[in-house]
Amino acid sequence: MRALETCLYVADLEAAEAFYSGVLGLRLYGKVPGRHLFYRLEGSMLLIFDPSMSAQPGDVPPHAGKPGGHACLAITREETDTWQALLEGHGLSVTRYAWGNRGESLYFEDPSGNVLELAPPGIWGLE
Amino acid sequence: MRALETCLYVADLEAAEAFYSGVLGLRLYGKVPGRHLFYRLEGSMLLIFDPSMSAQPGDVPPHAGKPGGHACLAITREETDTWQALLEGHGLSVTRYAWGNRGESLYFEDPSGNVLELAPPGIWGLE
Repeated sequence: MRALETCLYVADLEAAEAFYSGVLGLRLYGKVPGRHLFYRLEGSMLLIFDPSMSAQPGDVPPHAGKPGGHACLAITREETDTWQALLEGHGLSVTRYAWGNRGESLYFEDPSGNVLELAPPGIWGLE
Repeated sequence: MRALETCLYVADLEAAEAFYSGVLGLRLYGKVPGRHLFYRLEGSMLLIFDPSMSAQPGDVPPHAGKPGGHACLAITREETDTWQALLEGHGLSVTRYAWGNRGESLYFEDPSGNVLELAPPGIWGLE
Protein backbone atom coordinates (compact mmCIF):
# COMPACT_ATOMS: atom_id res chain seq x y z
CA MET A 1 0.00 0.00 0.00
CA ARG A 2 1.14 3.50 -0.63
CA ALA A 3 0.57 6.57 1.51
CA LEU A 4 -2.37 8.59 0.20
CA GLU A 5 -2.64 11.26 2.93
CA THR A 6 0.15 12.60 5.13
CA CYS A 7 -1.15 14.95 7.84
CA LEU A 8 0.30 17.72 9.92
CA TYR A 9 -1.39 19.93 12.50
CA VAL A 10 -0.73 23.62 12.92
CA ALA A 11 -1.70 26.42 15.26
CA ASP A 12 -1.91 29.08 12.54
CA LEU A 13 -3.20 28.16 9.10
CA GLU A 14 -2.40 31.53 7.53
CA ALA A 15 1.23 31.26 8.58
CA ALA A 16 1.21 27.66 7.35
CA GLU A 17 -0.13 28.67 3.93
CA ALA A 18 2.54 31.34 3.56
CA PHE A 19 5.13 28.73 4.43
CA TYR A 20 3.97 25.68 2.48
CA SER A 21 2.91 27.65 -0.58
CA GLY A 22 5.43 30.46 -0.47
CA VAL A 23 8.60 28.84 0.88
CA LEU A 24 8.22 25.19 -0.13
CA GLY A 25 6.28 26.05 -3.27
CA LEU A 26 3.72 23.27 -2.87
CA ARG A 27 0.58 23.37 -4.97
CA LEU A 28 -2.55 24.24 -2.98
CA TYR A 29 -5.40 21.89 -3.90
CA GLY A 30 -8.10 23.17 -1.57
CA LYS A 31 -8.64 25.08 1.63
CA VAL A 32 -11.30 25.88 4.16
CA PRO A 33 -10.18 28.99 6.05
CA GLY A 34 -9.73 28.19 9.72
CA ARG A 35 -9.92 24.43 9.18
CA HIS A 36 -7.45 23.06 6.68
CA LEU A 37 -5.08 23.39 3.74
CA PHE A 38 -4.85 20.51 1.30
CA TYR A 39 -1.71 20.26 -0.85
CA ARG A 40 -1.21 18.04 -3.87
CA LEU A 41 2.00 16.04 -3.82
CA GLU A 42 3.21 13.54 -6.42
CA GLY A 43 0.73 10.68 -6.07
CA SER A 44 -0.58 11.70 -2.66
CA MET A 45 -1.83 14.59 -0.55
CA LEU A 46 -0.38 16.63 2.31
CA LEU A 47 -3.23 17.65 4.61
CA ILE A 48 -2.65 20.44 7.12
CA PHE A 49 -5.27 20.90 9.80
CA ASP A 50 -6.10 23.24 12.63
CA PRO A 51 -6.79 20.51 15.20
CA SER A 52 -9.41 22.59 17.00
CA MET A 53 -11.51 22.31 13.83
CA SER A 54 -10.58 18.82 12.62
CA ALA A 55 -11.67 17.60 16.06
CA GLN A 56 -15.25 18.72 15.41
CA PRO A 57 -17.73 15.97 14.49
CA GLY A 58 -18.68 16.00 10.81
CA ASP A 59 -19.34 13.71 7.87
CA VAL A 60 -16.10 11.86 8.55
CA PRO A 61 -14.54 10.91 11.89
CA PRO A 62 -12.82 13.76 13.75
CA HIS A 63 -9.10 13.67 14.51
CA ALA A 64 -6.87 16.08 16.34
CA GLY A 65 -3.16 15.50 16.19
CA LYS A 66 -0.92 18.23 17.53
CA PRO A 67 1.74 20.51 16.10
CA GLY A 68 5.26 19.26 16.64
CA GLY A 69 4.99 16.24 14.36
CA HIS A 70 7.19 15.28 11.46
CA ALA A 71 7.00 14.64 7.73
CA CYS A 72 9.56 14.22 4.99
CA LEU A 73 9.26 15.12 1.32
CA ALA A 74 11.48 13.67 -1.37
CA ILE A 75 14.06 15.66 -3.26
CA THR A 76 16.95 14.49 -5.42
CA ARG A 77 20.47 14.38 -3.98
CA GLU A 78 21.48 17.01 -6.51
CA GLU A 79 18.88 19.43 -5.11
CA THR A 80 20.16 19.30 -1.52
CA ASP A 81 22.46 22.34 -1.72
CA THR A 82 19.89 24.39 -3.60
CA TRP A 83 17.19 23.64 -1.05
CA GLN A 84 19.47 24.41 1.89
CA ALA A 85 20.32 27.79 0.37
CA LEU A 86 16.67 28.52 -0.38
CA LEU A 87 15.50 27.63 3.13
CA GLU A 88 18.30 29.61 4.78
CA GLY A 89 17.51 32.49 2.45
CA HIS A 90 14.06 32.53 4.06
CA GLY A 91 15.73 32.84 7.46
CA LEU A 92 15.18 29.23 8.49
CA SER A 93 17.60 27.30 10.65
CA VAL A 94 18.55 24.13 8.74
CA THR A 95 20.17 21.03 10.21
CA ARG A 96 21.92 18.87 7.62
CA TYR A 97 22.56 15.22 8.41
CA ALA A 98 24.34 12.59 6.28
CA TRP A 99 23.02 9.03 6.26
CA GLY A 100 26.34 7.39 5.43
CA ASN A 101 26.72 7.61 1.66
CA ARG A 102 22.99 7.19 0.98
CA GLY A 103 22.21 10.89 0.95
CA GLU A 104 21.64 13.82 3.26
CA SER A 105 18.55 15.15 5.02
CA LEU A 106 17.68 18.77 5.60
CA TYR A 107 15.67 19.40 8.75
CA PHE A 108 13.85 22.63 9.56
CA GLU A 109 10.67 23.75 11.30
CA ASP A 110 7.42 25.09 9.94
CA PRO A 111 5.89 28.10 11.75
CA SER A 112 4.02 25.79 14.16
CA GLY A 113 7.07 23.74 15.13
CA ASN A 114 6.51 20.71 12.93
CA VAL A 115 9.90 19.23 12.04
CA LEU A 116 10.06 18.96 8.28
CA GLU A 117 12.65 17.07 6.31
CA LEU A 118 13.73 17.08 2.69
CA ALA A 119 15.71 14.02 1.68
CA PRO A 120 16.43 11.79 -1.31
CA PRO A 121 14.54 8.46 -1.37
CA GLY A 122 17.90 6.70 -1.30
CA ILE A 123 18.20 7.28 2.45
CA TRP A 124 15.58 4.52 2.72
CA GLY A 125 16.92 2.47 -0.17
CA LEU A 126 14.03 3.71 -2.32
CA GLU A 127 14.17 4.91 -5.91
CA MET B 1 7.60 16.50 -4.49
CA ARG B 2 6.33 13.26 -3.15
CA ALA B 3 5.83 12.23 0.46
CA LEU B 4 8.78 10.19 1.71
CA GLU B 5 7.85 9.82 5.39
CA THR B 6 4.38 9.81 6.92
CA CYS B 7 4.45 9.80 10.72
CA LEU B 8 2.11 8.74 13.47
CA TYR B 9 2.63 8.81 17.22
CA VAL B 10 1.44 6.11 19.59
CA ALA B 11 1.28 5.48 23.31
CA ASP B 12 2.04 1.74 23.05
CA LEU B 13 4.46 0.50 20.42
CA GLU B 14 3.83 -3.18 21.12
CA ALA B 15 0.11 -2.75 20.53
CA ALA B 16 0.94 -0.70 17.45
CA GLU B 17 3.17 -3.43 16.04
CA ALA B 18 0.48 -6.06 16.55
CA PHE B 19 -1.94 -3.76 14.74
CA TYR B 20 0.13 -2.44 11.83
CA SER B 21 1.89 -5.75 11.17
CA GLY B 22 -0.84 -8.18 12.18
CA VAL B 23 -4.06 -6.44 11.15
CA LEU B 24 -2.96 -4.17 8.29
CA GLY B 25 -0.23 -6.55 7.18
CA LEU B 26 2.36 -3.84 6.57
CA ARG B 27 5.99 -4.83 6.14
CA LEU B 28 8.18 -3.94 9.11
CA TYR B 29 11.43 -2.36 7.91
CA GLY B 30 13.07 -1.60 11.24
CA LYS B 31 12.32 -1.06 14.90
CA VAL B 32 13.92 0.18 18.07
CA PRO B 33 11.91 -1.22 21.00
CA GLY B 34 10.38 1.61 22.99
CA ARG B 35 11.18 4.25 20.35
CA HIS B 36 9.82 3.47 16.92
CA LEU B 37 8.50 1.14 14.24
CA PHE B 38 9.41 1.87 10.62
CA TYR B 39 7.17 0.37 7.92
CA ARG B 40 7.92 0.18 4.22
CA LEU B 41 5.10 1.41 1.99
CA GLU B 42 5.09 1.63 -1.80
CA GLY B 43 7.63 4.37 -2.52
CA SER B 44 7.67 5.80 0.99
CA MET B 45 7.83 4.99 4.69
CA LEU B 46 5.32 4.99 7.54
CA LEU B 47 7.14 5.94 10.74
CA ILE B 48 5.46 5.25 14.08
CA PHE B 49 7.02 6.84 17.12
CA ASP B 50 6.62 6.85 20.88
CA PRO B 51 6.76 10.65 21.26
CA SER B 52 8.40 10.42 24.69
CA MET B 53 11.43 8.93 22.91
CA SER B 54 11.34 10.79 19.59
CA ALA B 55 11.41 14.00 21.67
CA GLN B 56 14.85 13.13 23.04
CA PRO B 57 17.80 14.99 21.49
CA GLY B 58 19.86 12.81 19.15
CA ASP B 59 21.69 12.84 15.83
CA VAL B 60 18.64 14.33 14.14
CA PRO B 61 16.21 16.95 15.46
CA PRO B 62 13.67 15.69 17.99
CA HIS B 63 9.94 15.79 17.30
CA ALA B 64 6.98 14.79 19.39
CA GLY B 65 3.62 14.73 17.73
CA LYS B 66 0.77 13.18 19.65
CA PRO B 67 -1.55 10.21 19.18
CA GLY B 68 -4.89 11.11 17.67
CA GLY B 69 -3.56 12.08 14.25
CA HIS B 70 -4.58 10.80 10.86
CA ALA B 71 -3.14 9.04 7.85
CA CYS B 72 -4.63 7.39 4.79
CA LEU B 73 -3.26 4.46 2.80
CA ALA B 74 -4.31 3.68 -0.73
CA ILE B 75 -6.37 0.66 -1.70
CA THR B 76 -8.26 -0.07 -4.92
CA ARG B 77 -12.01 0.48 -5.06
CA GLU B 78 -12.45 -3.23 -5.59
CA GLU B 79 -10.74 -3.96 -2.27
CA THR B 80 -13.09 -1.81 -0.17
CA ASP B 81 -15.53 -4.57 0.81
CA THR B 82 -12.74 -7.02 1.55
CA TRP B 83 -10.93 -4.56 3.80
CA GLN B 84 -14.11 -3.61 5.65
CA ALA B 85 -14.80 -7.29 6.36
CA LEU B 86 -11.21 -7.90 7.44
CA LEU B 87 -11.16 -4.92 9.80
CA GLU B 88 -14.53 -5.76 11.31
CA GLY B 89 -13.38 -9.35 11.66
CA HIS B 90 -10.65 -8.00 13.95
CA GLY B 91 -13.36 -6.33 16.04
CA LEU B 92 -12.74 -2.82 14.74
CA SER B 93 -15.50 -0.26 14.33
CA VAL B 94 -15.40 0.91 10.70
CA THR B 95 -17.03 4.07 9.34
CA ARG B 96 -17.62 3.94 5.58
CA TYR B 97 -18.05 7.20 3.71
CA ALA B 98 -18.75 7.73 -0.01
CA TRP B 99 -17.09 10.66 -1.80
CA GLY B 100 -19.75 11.06 -4.46
CA ASN B 101 -18.94 8.52 -7.17
CA ARG B 102 -15.16 8.85 -6.72
CA GLY B 103 -14.84 6.03 -4.22
CA GLU B 104 -15.37 5.24 -0.57
CA SER B 105 -13.20 5.65 2.50
CA LEU B 106 -12.97 3.27 5.43
CA TYR B 107 -12.16 4.95 8.74
CA PHE B 108 -11.07 3.13 11.89
CA GLU B 109 -8.77 3.70 14.84
CA ASP B 110 -5.43 2.18 15.74
CA PRO B 111 -4.92 1.13 19.39
CA SER B 112 -3.67 4.64 20.29
CA GLY B 113 -6.62 6.46 18.75
CA ASN B 114 -5.04 7.55 15.48
CA VAL B 115 -7.77 7.77 12.85
CA LEU B 116 -6.69 5.64 9.91
CA GLU B 117 -8.28 5.62 6.51
CA LEU B 118 -8.13 3.26 3.56
CA ALA B 119 -9.31 4.79 0.31
CA PRO B 120 -8.78 4.62 -3.44
CA PRO B 121 -6.60 7.40 -4.92
CA GLY B 122 -9.59 8.42 -7.02
CA ILE B 123 -11.14 10.25 -4.07
CA TRP B 124 -8.42 12.86 -4.74
CA GLY B 125 -8.54 12.54 -8.49
CA LEU B 126 -5.28 10.58 -8.39
CA GLU B 127 -4.40 7.42 -10.28
